[in-house]
Formats: sequence, C-alpha cells, structure tokens
Amino acid sequence: MSQKNFSRKNSLLKEIDFYLVTDSRLSKKGTLSDVKEAVESGCKIVQYREKDKSTKVMIEEASEIKKICSGKAIFLVNDRIDIALAVDADGVHIGQDDMPLETARRLLGEDKIIGLSVHDREEAILAEKAGADYVGLGPIFDTATKKDAGEGIGLLKLREVKAAIRIPVVAIGGINRGNCESVVQNGADSLVAISAVVCSDDVKKETEYFIDTIRRIKRQISDNL
Amino acid sequence: MSQKNFSRKNSLLKEIDFYLVTDSRLSKKGTLSDVKEAVESGCKIVQYREKDKSTKVMIEEASEIKKICSGKAIFLVNDRIDIALAVDADGVHIGQDDMPLETARRLLGEDKIIGLSVHDREEAILAEKAGADYVGLGPIFDTATKKDAGEGIGLLKLREVKAAIRIPVVAIGGINRGNCESVVQNGADSLVAISAVVCSDDVKKETEYFIDTIRRIKRQISDNL
Ligand code: NI
Repeated sequence: MSQKNFSRKNSLLKEIDFYLVTDSRLSKKGTLSDVKEAVESGCKIVQYREKDKSTKVMIEEASEIKKICSGKAIFLVNDRIDIALAVDADGVHIGQDDMPLETARRLLGEDKIIGLSVHDREEAILAEKAGADYVGLGPIFDTATKKDAGEGIGLLKLREVKAAIRIPVVAIGGINRGNCESVVQNGADSLVAISAVVCSDDVKKETEYFIDTIRRIKRQISDNL
Repeated sequence: MSQKNFSRKNSLLKEIDFYLVTDSRLSKKGTLSDVKEAVESGCKIVQYREKDKSTKVMIEEASEIKKICSGKAIFLVNDRIDIALAVDADGVHIGQDDMPLETARRLLGEDKIIGLSVHDREEAILAEKAGADYVGLGPIFDTATKKDAGEGIGLLKLREVKAAIRIPVVAIGGINRGNCESVVQNGADSLVAISAVVCSDDVKKETEYFIDTIRRIKRQISDNL
C-alpha cells in the first residue's frame, strides 16, 4: 500500500461518528432513501447490508449507494466481497462467519477499508493484528433487531476493547437515543443504531440527532483531557 | 487472454459429459461425498451451488471441492464470484439474476470459465456474444427441484439453441434416466440431473450410468454423421 492511501483511509475513518447500516426489512422508506437522507444529514460512513436479494439487484443497489456516498461518505458492503469488487466500493465489513480477513485483504488490496465484527477484547486484538481497519463491537446492549446476536456485552467491555486497540471502535447493538451518550462516554469512536434510524419516520432528523450527540460527547471528552 | 489458456479452457469444456451440480438440501450423503463419488466415477465438471450457508462455510466447502476436483474435473462456483476468487476456482456459473457477465469477466479474467443460464435461443445467442464459455439451458422438462424455474421448454427448443451457437450447451431441468438419451440426441453437449444423482443411494452408480449413456449417444451421433 502507498503511504498516501494508508493515510487517506485512516483519516477518512477518523472522521466518522454516526455509522449507517442499511436494513431493507426494517426500513420504512427503503434502503436508497435511508442512505440518501443519512448522507444529506452528514453521515460519513454507510454499510450496505442485504441478505435476501439476488446478486444482480444487490449490484444495482450498491451502485446507486456508491453514487450517493461519492465524495461524502465511506461506502462499505457487508460480507459480499463480490459486490464490493463489482461496484468498486471503499471496502467491506465482515463478520466472524464471513470470508476470513486475510482472504478479503488479498482480494481487495491494501487500499480498501476492511472492518471486522468482534465480540470481545481478544477478538478485537486479533482483528487489529490481522489488519482490520476498524472493529464493529457488539452487541453492546440486548437487541431485538438481531436475535442471534446474543446478550449485550455492556459498557465495561466496550471500555476494555477501546483500551486494547488503536483502530476505531464502532459500537453496535441495542443503541438508541437513550443510551447513545453512554456509549460514546465509554470509548466508542462511532456507533450504529439501525432500528432507531431506519424505523423512524424521519431518517434525517434521527441521523442529525445521533451525529450531534456523538460530536458533543466527543468534545466533552477532549475538553476534559 | 493467452491463446494457450483459451485453448485449454475450451478443450476442457469439450470433454464434459455428465455435469454435477451440488444441492445440500436434496443430498442424501452431503455435498462433499457427492462430489467425491461423482469425480471418482469420471465426472469432469462440478458446480458448487449453495444458497443457505455462511460465506465462511462456503469457502471451506469450496476449498475441499477444489482439492477433490484438482486435475480431474472443472470446478465452478454458482453465482458467488467472491467464493470463486477466494479459492481460485476454475470459474463460475451465473444466472440471469446474478452478476452481469461483463462484470464477472472483468473480475475473473479471460482465463476463467464463465457459464450462463439461458432459457431460449435469444438469450443463448446473447450469452455467446457476451463471452460466455458455455450455456446452461433449461428447464428442459418440468421440474420439482426448482419450483421457480417455470415450465419445461422441450426438446425442440434445445435443438434450436444448439443450432444457433457454437459454445457447449448444458441441458438442465427434469432430466432423469428415462429422458436423458433424448436430451443428448437433441443436441445437448452435457446434462445436469440433480435429484436423479444426489437423491440416490449410490451417487457413483448413477453418475456412471449418465456418463455411459451420454457417451454412447454421442458415439451414435458421430457415427451417423
Ligand atoms: Ni498502496
């Protein structure tokens, strides 16, 4: 990887606060509308997560999302390296049941962003060592959205993970207006709140709320340092 | 593409007769066992088709299948270009709802085999023009295996397709011991008979039956020319 692109990838990731993950099953207005509204509200990272559609439709949607994000937000594809390659996304987000990180890195190259889902400190340390550009840590709280996700790990574990690695920590799982401040106070660099946003009647307003809150807490933290 | 690899790809495809498509839902003994038995019986092309498993498990299975096929059979992956790239398969088989052929070709390169599912003469001609290495034509007969596949197109349409293109025609859909001779007599270069093989108690015996029958009919045809 060129030093230039390494820097670019990392400075882009330093800028993220609210992190949008699409969910066509939960969405009120549809994935493309959700992405458009979130990016218009200043969301700087979008992950296209789709499990039920054909590869053809996923490539069409990913291609539209790429246009919406272009120059404004990082655009990642969940799991499907083929979709990411087909539309030349900025990278992928993979889980522990997806392609191994080493294989994904080989196919995507050093300049693409790869985020990895982790559930504890050990997995987070391994992810950083293996070359992940950020980790998605969760579920922080119990969640109804992803029933197979297990019980929430809590804010203490979030602090532990944040203390153990240098790459950004994106918190996910059961996060809403009520608890998002505590998530940032306990070390999250960014957070996902799927149902709070895509189930809302006003994706723009919700996205703005989360962005404002995350930035406010981050300012408080840096003022206290 | 090098002329050498073009020749290699095409001479490999000229050798195929019975074509195995895996189906973990229908299989009696499991996909890896089916592939092993079919390849031991002389099957020269295997397509790994899996819709329900995680990417991680698919890569693990595809990696095992690649080993079994190595030096003996062409190994293709259905739909998932990411899985094919991860294990360096010989190519992919894509349907009309999968990645566009042009995109798949760009990601895989000229040396990989790309087969495309088609349903009529027009789609077959377009597939050949777009650079498909073979077409999968079907459903030839009505089929219970793939309920969304529609009604069988019949043997006359198979003849029409065979007359219209130069790349190999692989017949699929409702093919069994009873009708497989007619399929080859009407122009199929190769054929798939999923349930006839993977639902059987003896995958080896069934594969041998189809290979023997296809070769016998092909010899009869070339003797009559
Ligand atoms: Ni570079």
